[in-house]
Amino acid sequence: MRVPVPLRRAYQVINHGPTVLVGSAHGDKRNVMAAAWAMALDYDPPKVAVVIAADTYTRKLVDASAEFTLNLPTEAMLDVTWNVGSVNGEAVDKFSRFGVQTFPAQVVKAPLIDGCVGWLECKVIPNEALARDFGLFLAEVVAAQVEDSVFQDGEWRFGDSKQRTIHHLSRGAFLASGPLLRAKKL
Amino acid sequence: MRVPVPLRRAYQVINHGPTVLVGSAHGDKRNVMAAAWAMALDYDPPKVAVVIAADTYTRKLVDASAEFTLNLPTEAMLDVTWNVGSVNGEAVDKFSRFGVQTFPAQVVKAPLIDGCVGWLECKVIPNEALARDFGLFLAEVVAAQVEDSVFQDGEWRFGDSKQRTIHHLSRGAFLASGPLLRAKKL
Repeated sequence: MRVPVPLRRAYQVINHGPTVLVGSAHGDKRNVMAAAWAMALDYDPPKVAVVIAADTYTRKLVDASAEFTLNLPTEAMLDVTWNVGSVNGEAVDKFSRFGVQTFPAQVVKAPLIDGCVGWLECKVIPNEALARDFGLFLAEVVAAQVEDSVFQDGEWRFGDSKQRTIHHLSRGAFLASGPLLRAKKL
Repeated sequence: MRVPVPLRRAYQVINHGPTVLVGSAHGDKRNVMAAAWAMALDYDPPKVAVVIAADTYTRKLVDASAEFTLNLPTEAMLDVTWNVGSVNGEAVDKFSRFGVQTFPAQVVKAPLIDGCVGWLECKVIPNEALARDFGLFLAEVVAAQVEDSVFQDGEWRFGDSKQRTIHHLSRGAFLASGPLLRAKKL
């Protein structure tokens, strides 16, 4: 079941560095792409950083709307994740082409992606130089949700479920999120 | 065996979003801390982004030296990783306290950490506003190395080795890097 995460804990959704799907929209246009270069940036209010390259359709929509969503795809979504990261959304409607289903976000207009296990809604903190020089976007997280069957007490608990998150290496090779480990105080 | 990685492939070392150890030095002072908020930022020349909070000793050393290293600790280093992320290096020599061994970097003066499986040497791209407002540092990667028993053909191949990398969730809970998955073209 999809449940809200208190904003002060939103960083916990992406703290482990998974590859994400970036949802974007402007007017009646929308897009989805994959991004391995995303991370938390602050706790409270929560912020994130993500690289959105200049030559992408997502970039056009985010530049126009100043909003996006970060969605955490699963092992079950491995092929879709790689493929939406490999074609340009201006030429192809990736939602219909790859069977990507969406549902409405709570605060932003960009879509959330069905089948994912974590969802962050983000409003861009304007910084033209960062976008121009590095394709880097900083954003405040304004809403967060998780799939509670695999996220409990502020921790991802995937076991070896096909709902575990994935981490892109390169060229379509990914690592699944592995076993839970608990560090000890020394 | 530790082997160099061509700079254009340095992003592959951290593309999967592992938690890293940040090595820093200035004059005869040095420190090590853990950071989950680190990511690749560009391919060639390779760049990275990492959050180094204002209240850390690492921040003082990086502000003074404009250099740092990112080191990828392993499951075997789980406890050390969490503990060096939990105490301040100005009060405690974390190297002796936690038995952290180092070796010299090739280009920068900050130390590289023994027992890790990937090492990036980084020179800060100056940006005072980002550091002040977000604790965010952008840097160019000027040298990269990996442990070749677990990194082949540009891919991490950990299996279930204790040399696999780790991903911090929160409060000392980590996920190990899991199985290798290969996406298919749709």
